Amino acid sequence: MQLNHTKEKDGLIIMLMSKLLGERFKEKPSEATSTSHVFLLRGGYVRQVTNGIYTLLPPAKRIAAKIENIIREEMDAIDGQEVLFPVALPGDLWKESGRFDAVGSELVRFKDRANKDMILGMTHEEAAVHLARSEAKSYADYPFMIYQIQTKFRDEPRARGGLIRVREFTMKDAYSFHTSQEDLEQYYDQCYDAYHKIYARAGVPEVISVKSDTGMMGGKVAHEFMLLTDIGEDTLVICDSCDYRSNMEVAVGKLAVSTTSEAEIKEVETPNMKTIEEVAGFLNVPVTNTLKACVFAAEGQEKPVIVFIRGDLQVNTSKLEKITKAAVTPFEDYENAKNLCFGFMGPYGLDAQGATVIFDASLKDEKNLVAGGNKVDVHITGISMSREFPDAEYVDVAEVFEGQECPCCHGKLQFKRGVEVGNIFQLGTRYTESMGMTYVDKDGKAKTPIMGCYGIGVGRLLACIIEARHDDYGPIWPMSVAPWQVHICVLKSKKQDMNVVGMDLYNKLNKKFEVIVDDRDVAAGAQFADADLLGVPVRVVVGEKNLANGQVELVTRDKSVKKLVAIEDIEKEVAELVEQLSNM
Amino acid sequence: MQLNHTKEKDGLIIMLMSKLLGERFKEKPSEATSTSHVFLLRGGYVRQVTNGIYTLLPPAKRIAAKIENIIREEMDAIDGQEVLFPVALPGDLWKESGRFDAVGSELVRFKDRANKDMILGMTHEEAAVHLARSEAKSYADYPFMIYQIQTKFRDEPRARGGLIRVREFTMKDAYSFHTSQEDLEQYYDQCYDAYHKIYARAGVPEVISVKSDTGMMGGKVAHEFMLLTDIGEDTLVICDSCDYRSNMEVAVGKLAVSTTSEAEIKEVETPNMKTIEEVAGFLNVPVTNTLKACVFAAEGQEKPVIVFIRGDLQVNTSKLEKITKAAVTPFEDYENAKNLCFGFMGPYGLDAQGATVIFDASLKDEKNLVAGGNKVDVHITGISMSREFPDAEYVDVAEVFEGQECPCCHGKLQFKRGVEVGNIFQLGTRYTESMGMTYVDKDGKAKTPIMGCYGIGVGRLLACIIEARHDDYGPIWPMSVAPWQVHICVLKSKKQDMNVVGMDLYNKLNKKFEVIVDDRDVAAGAQFADADLLGVPVRVVVGEKNLANGQVELVTRDKSVKKLVAIEDIEKEVAELVEQLSNM
Repeated sequence: MQLNHTKEKDGLIIMLMSKLLGERFKEKPSEATSTSHVFLLRGGYVRQVTNGIYTLLPPAKRIAAKIENIIREEMDAIDGQEVLFPVALPGDLWKESGRFDAVGSELVRFKDRANKDMILGMTHEEAAVHLARSEAKSYADYPFMIYQIQTKFRDEPRARGGLIRVREFTMKDAYSFHTSQEDLEQYYDQCYDAYHKIYARAGVPEVISVKSDTGMMGGKVAHEFMLLTDIGEDTLVICDSCDYRSNMEVAVGKLAVSTTSEAEIKEVETPNMKTIEEVAGFLNVPVTNTLKACVFAAEGQEKPVIVFIRGDLQVNTSKLEKITKAAVTPFEDYENAKNLCFGFMGPYGLDAQGATVIFDASLKDEKNLVAGGNKVDVHITGISMSREFPDAEYVDVAEVFEGQECPCCHGKLQFKRGVEVGNIFQLGTRYTESMGMTYVDKDGKAKTPIMGCYGIGVGRLLACIIEARHDDYGPIWPMSVAPWQVHICVLKSKKQDMNVVGMDLYNKLNKKFEVIVDDRDVAAGAQFADADLLGVPVRVVVGEKNLANGQVELVTRDKSVKKLVAIEDIEKEVAELVEQLSNM
Repeated sequence: MQLNHTKEKDGLIIMLMSKLLGERFKEKPSEATSTSHVFLLRGGYVRQVTNGIYTLLPPAKRIAAKIENIIREEMDAIDGQEVLFPVALPGDLWKESGRFDAVGSELVRFKDRANKDMILGMTHEEAAVHLARSEAKSYADYPFMIYQIQTKFRDEPRARGGLIRVREFTMKDAYSFHTSQEDLEQYYDQCYDAYHKIYARAGVPEVISVKSDTGMMGGKVAHEFMLLTDIGEDTLVICDSCDYRSNMEVAVGKLAVSTTSEAEIKEVETPNMKTIEEVAGFLNVPVTNTLKACVFAAEGQEKPVIVFIRGDLQVNTSKLEKITKAAVTPFEDYENAKNLCFGFMGPYGLDAQGATVIFDASLKDEKNLVAGGNKVDVHITGISMSREFPDAEYVDVAEVFEGQECPCCHGKLQFKRGVEVGNIFQLGTRYTESMGMTYVDKDGKAKTPIMGCYGIGVGRLLACIIEARHDDYGPIWPMSVAPWQVHICVLKSKKQDMNVVGMDLYNKLNKKFEVIVDDRDVAAGAQFADADLLGVPVRVVVGEKNLANGQVELVTRDKSVKKLVAIEDIEKEVAELVEQLSNM
């Protein structure tokens, strides 16, 4: 009998554990920072080549291919057309959109042999517009969506967590083009639904969508799809009673209306009191009745940015950056802002001298506020915003806090950690306009198409499935993405050649299922530990004792099923189990 | 009735021509240099993003996916395990193998944000060894083969011909590891056979294999798989009577044995005669009785390389570079080689002063030769190699010529042009040794594994299928790789809504085949021209006249079948035709 190498039978591949490349091991790797990272290493799924750059071994490659196919089918189902853009793109294209200079060092730039600027695509809006602008010149060509599943490179400063945050990754990125905002919105909703279908089919139906920031992508409306997990880097704001869900970056909350009545402006001495809590305590007023100044430097801008905000609140820099249109950091260039009295700054009597002044929405209609007096050790009380600053404009730059009232109902906002496993953006004309893309409309006039874009990282989704579906011993792969469907453990015996039985069994099963067979001469415990690490949903254990009764053991990876089955029933029983697990 | 967008039915995608992204056109694009280039552009298959870098549009992406699946199945069938290596690799890995410095500017190098050297993989031997050396430490793990289908970047100086020679491309690259040369050779033969299966399944069974140079890959034995075509960049040497086939770079031929008898050495005046033909004519001897000197500069080496070779032959620089182990170019640094008498150089009385002297095998046992006398206007006659240079060693650095005798039989060598569509190499220990990869053998000793590597470029194969399978109007795709299997042309009519019939027809066909439907309101000629450019093997034409008789027209893309079929028979007839074309 031959049990060497993989064998292809009727188009189904049978893999032998003795030949599967990839060492599996027990010890938790010291570098691993999350459950998925631990199991990806211990199970022989991935190996790091250099910081944030991994090779996928056969089991991970198989899982990735299945995830890709699920994504492909759902993209095709919403009229997507698959294309393939280049990994290396001419810098000129990114200069057209302005991102060649705007994006920081996460964008890899290099010169080709002709000394031309090239970049490695971290996202492909420019490539999509480059293609679409030469192929879709008439309104009749619209709408359409093109997508690819391709390698991206993003030189992350903080690669971590195995496949959670890497520098090179496979991503499905899709781009839709429309002739009206309504059409974009309608398609955006279709895509939103398709995303939920993808996560459900990949075995993580609990993925939620939250409103998100559009960041460097531009555009106005965006959603992230999030798997809630403690290892998440994102803070999600979720209402405890309605559907409101948002990324912290764009979350809003309601604030109780102030019930204080107006008072006269007074200057008060507040010696050595620099924090708002000290001042409020000293004056015996609630912190919510104070106004504080937060000063920022905006990248590439000389003027300091002064944000006045209610004393109990923090500034949300993501929101602020949408206004400054530049990255902000705490202001520290005190030498060049000597007119500002740091620690005692307030809007009343401020010598702003060209600083950008922003009033947060939390201050609107507030009365009898305490604020800095713009002199050392001096505060002002009795500030009524509408009386003192009748022309002030208010914008929301406040960070929500846990327990704050939901903007949509009377529920309370809760914070959760999440990992982003996808995102969708209404880009508008951010790229089509800057790159001069137009089509001829029905009226014969040239118009600018409206775009949406839609991304899912394949490797990160793979890792998140482990985060969501595992026990202490390894991943519990959903049937839809499992590297194999059935794992046959052929336990060793001194009395008989168990591989004959194993071979017979996989001859029966291989016609319908993807099967891996453990043919190794190792202890049962070692076989089971490896089977747990490979996480194949259905396991058939062939052991001497049960064989004597004409039986084998059928076990599910999640251990919910564990029973003895007559050998002649094994095909039927496995089929039922695979079917049952496929519908979970 | 709805005929908008693509629709998925029972898992099969139906594409509508009205929604297919990609303009098709009649005019030959001025930049196109080959048939495949013309049709790839005219048919809306690819668009250039920048020199040698293309986006694949939906039809090309579909064809590429089918080619990839054929390759995948054949690699799996010879026990391959699919992995995925990174596109961006740490420079350190390539420093280990020595190729970071050895490879020229076709290797893209860049620095990451941590200022570390990175490269874009143009081939993945280093990545394969990096993975294998940590996972295959025991002889019991061998042999094994891993492969990937992934993007490569090679900064070609002369990108050309559409997808024939590009800078970025998708490639299947496979790496096998063995514990003995015999095992490598046995596996190499398996892979050789798998390659022929791949080309046959992809519709180009005429691809031939030729012995080839191992170039920058290192190793000793290599084969290229070649499609013979006039646009080919490679010159193939093929025997007109036996199986001998070789790339020009390593081709050998037999030379007639000299029948001249020995003579005395004489110095003769040959005023102003610099070419060997002039000298031979002047002395009235055949050119085959002369000996000429060819001088080369080897990159990174100071010494000139003097090759003495029979007067009628040319030096094959590929062969020479295997000896110099460096790129060679004609020597031009005359200032630093004043001892050499250019134009009158010969081995007799030569003051070589540290130059590297090489005798080509064509001179062995030759007698009574004419050669340069190392003085201006002087030649020497009567040179007998074994008498004058008893210690000379001979190596083969001669280029074969058309009509030369085959090295294996008495046939004549012919030259053909070909495009390489794949290659296989016996690498030996070139990478495993330099990168310190070992395994523990049965005897407990550390040994170095022996490697083979095996590549196929997907896009180039796609282009070559067009080169081999087209007519004046477009590609004639083999069924196995066709973007769709059936193309329904719904001709327009003023009398009735033909799309009702078209819809009915594709409802029948879509359950079994991949169908594209031309639903556009354009002239029949325009529909047919586009159908020819898309090259779908089976076409169903729905026209008013035939419909009146309850018939539609069934046509194959190669025009070998063209018949009227009753509508009720269409499923059966199409199935037969698809089956028949699938077996071609």
